[in-house]
Amino acid sequence: MFGELVYLDNSATTRLDERVLEAMTPYFLETYAVATSEFGYSPGIEAKEALEKARETIASALGATAEEFVFTSGSTEASNMALKGVAMALGKKGTHIIVSRIEDFAVLYSAKALEKQGYQVTYLDVDAEGLVDLDQLREAISEETILVSIQHANQEIGTMQDIETIGQMCREKGVLFHTDATHTFGRVGLDVSQAPVDLVTVSAHTIHGPRGMGGLYMRKGTPITRWMDGGFQEFNRRAGLENIPGAVGFAKAVELVTPEENERLQALRDHLIDRVLREIPHTTLNGHRWQRLPQNGNITFHFVEGESITLHLDMRGFAVSTGSACFSRSLEASHVIMGIGGNHERAHGSVRFTFGRYNTMEDVDAVVDAVAEVVTLLRKISPLGKA
Amino acid sequence: MFGELVYLDNSATTRLDERVLEAMTPYFLETYAVATSEFGYSPGIEAKEALEKARETIASALGATAEEFVFTSGSTEASNMALKGVAMALGKKGTHIIVSRIEDFAVLYSAKALEKQGYQVTYLDVDAEGLVDLDQLREAISEETILVSIQHANQEIGTMQDIETIGQMCREKGVLFHTDATHTFGRVGLDVSQAPVDLVTVSAHTIHGPRGMGGLYMRKGTPITRWMDGGFQEFNRRAGLENIPGAVGFAKAVELVTPEENERLQALRDHLIDRVLREIPHTTLNGHRWQRLPQNGNITFHFVEGESITLHLDMRGFAVSTGSACFSRSLEASHVIMGIGGNHERAHGSVRFTFGRYNTMEDVDAVVDAVAEVVTLLRKISPLGKA
Repeated sequence: MFGELVYLDNSATTRLDERVLEAMTPYFLETYAVATSEFGYSPGIEAKEALEKARETIASALGATAEEFVFTSGSTEASNMALKGVAMALGKKGTHIIVSRIEDFAVLYSAKALEKQGYQVTYLDVDAEGLVDLDQLREAISEETILVSIQHANQEIGTMQDIETIGQMCREKGVLFHTDATHTFGRVGLDVSQAPVDLVTVSAHTIHGPRGMGGLYMRKGTPITRWMDGGFQEFNRRAGLENIPGAVGFAKAVELVTPEENERLQALRDHLIDRVLREIPHTTLNGHRWQRLPQNGNITFHFVEGESITLHLDMRGFAVSTGSACFSRSLEASHVIMGIGGNHERAHGSVRFTFGRYNTMEDVDAVVDAVAEVVTLLRKISPLGKA
Repeated sequence: MFGELVYLDNSATTRLDERVLEAMTPYFLETYAVATSEFGYSPGIEAKEALEKARETIASALGATAEEFVFTSGSTEASNMALKGVAMALGKKGTHIIVSRIEDFAVLYSAKALEKQGYQVTYLDVDAEGLVDLDQLREAISEETILVSIQHANQEIGTMQDIETIGQMCREKGVLFHTDATHTFGRVGLDVSQAPVDLVTVSAHTIHGPRGMGGLYMRKGTPITRWMDGGFQEFNRRAGLENIPGAVGFAKAVELVTPEENERLQALRDHLIDRVLREIPHTTLNGHRWQRLPQNGNITFHFVEGESITLHLDMRGFAVSTGSACFSRSLEASHVIMGIGGNHERAHGSVRFTFGRYNTMEDVDAVVDAVAEVVTLLRKISPLGKA
């Protein structure tokens, strides 16, 4: 219906890998029995074994034990469960929660929902590169604090937080620490057997796994009330018929990611950033230059609307996005760009590039050429001044 | 690994129809872009259109408009959202909720979770056939009542409630009415343009659709607070990256159900019930004889353990279940059988048969023959007396 596009936005990662689909198919059509325990009958046990093997694979990739990992319908649910589950479990101990200003919406709006229920929330500032103010964090933690939730890497500008130091700080104060690792899982190592992290949100669709699949790591002993009520699935921690094809596909997606691939994505990123900053005038990199997601570039093209760039690039065969995937549905300014001290003009001129398995160095060169052309064109007719 | 089994339990419906997988596949591998709005780029719009077309198909099947239907990760999430979302929205108006004693776990445990948060819950009794006591319901509704949640049909014994009358009663008192239609959707007509129902839970896996997919119908104007916080998807009512392959598969599953198929399932049900009650002594049908799900049979074989029957049938190539899918993981007595006045012996001797698209009349005859044999055998060695 539409011509072939080169995806350099979130959709660059949402293409399911054929090998993932292949791994899932037997669980759609053959081993489709409802998972059951030692009671019950044989195919249910086979299905249950597939589920537990998938859980083991994903938990291992995090350095966790299988019992510490539950499947969810995605990272949004996992973060809702982490924040609201801990708030419910520890509400009598304290009602203070700390998040950063630039969290993704699942964490940010879960915090806001808790605020409406009477919890106090501190929104930490970040510096110009998107790094959380550690002094402010230290001062914010009080006797009332029950949870700190700071993302592993930012969804828009790619900046990676120093979760080691943050987690250590939380641990010293006896406060639980949750990190949203939606965009780092598989791409950047996170080993909970070493890192002082109590809860971790992960997702499948960011690494070419199935949509509607994610999970929450919960360190053994972490107090958390069940958020999704119902049956006794997932160690009685998350109700709902198990999505076994989804779990198997998620595990397969985890297995398919390699360190070589992550290095390759990082090379794409670096090449894009280097070329754009060098060749296109009046550009600013958003986020940290080095402490950033290997698959993310985010650049403000001053005196131009990001929306105009995306439309012109679309016509030239490239898909990129402005702001977050969710924000691109509204014309509101990105809270992340505003959070790093940007103004509306900078927020609206920002374009995000995301790299996935199917992107090549040729794609990067082609998109940079196209962007240079588009930006030059748009600046000529820009009402924002300068040309 | 295991021999071929004939599924006559919940797994009889969890086999994905190949045509559903076929419908989903392009959305895994081709039209995999993140759904976007009129802003953004072309493939995102194509993905969005597929999502909205799927929504339209499912909403139409309920007699609803597309804007009244949101996708969820399954019926468990939909029922959590209905009960907790309404409780949050109307908590200031009142704190009383009414459910039946034999609701499925998502409704039952959501109600219990709300009880812990200070809501009052009335658990309505049911009669020997599983029908809610309408007089008790009428008396239970007070000024404080904000929601009545009574299932369309029971998950274990198949009894269908008179939701017309219940809904009418709620409407007269100005109370919202939610019904869990997980097991009826597609199988038994429910037209919300006629029926006085405000919220309806539906699921895909009960009609050979994908797991991890369900939805909630919310009548226009129904006060409900967002339960899954995050991005602005699903009309800003349910956050999380849209599972477009899942939505498309769900819609396809809805399209594939025909009135002829439902009549065929009902014939299987009737044949099973008739033969068992006639040919095997000391058997009791659980649930209503006629006002019941077309795809459900549930029978107590007195003086025998249901678990023993399932194990022996498994060895003979038939999968059936005791109690609910969830309960079969514990040895607790079914709350449904207890709810209709059964004792532990009756609960433990009950076996549920579920029919799906791939079951035939030959399956039914074969399983009745096998059950007759197994029950005779077990009664000879039964410690429960009688033979």
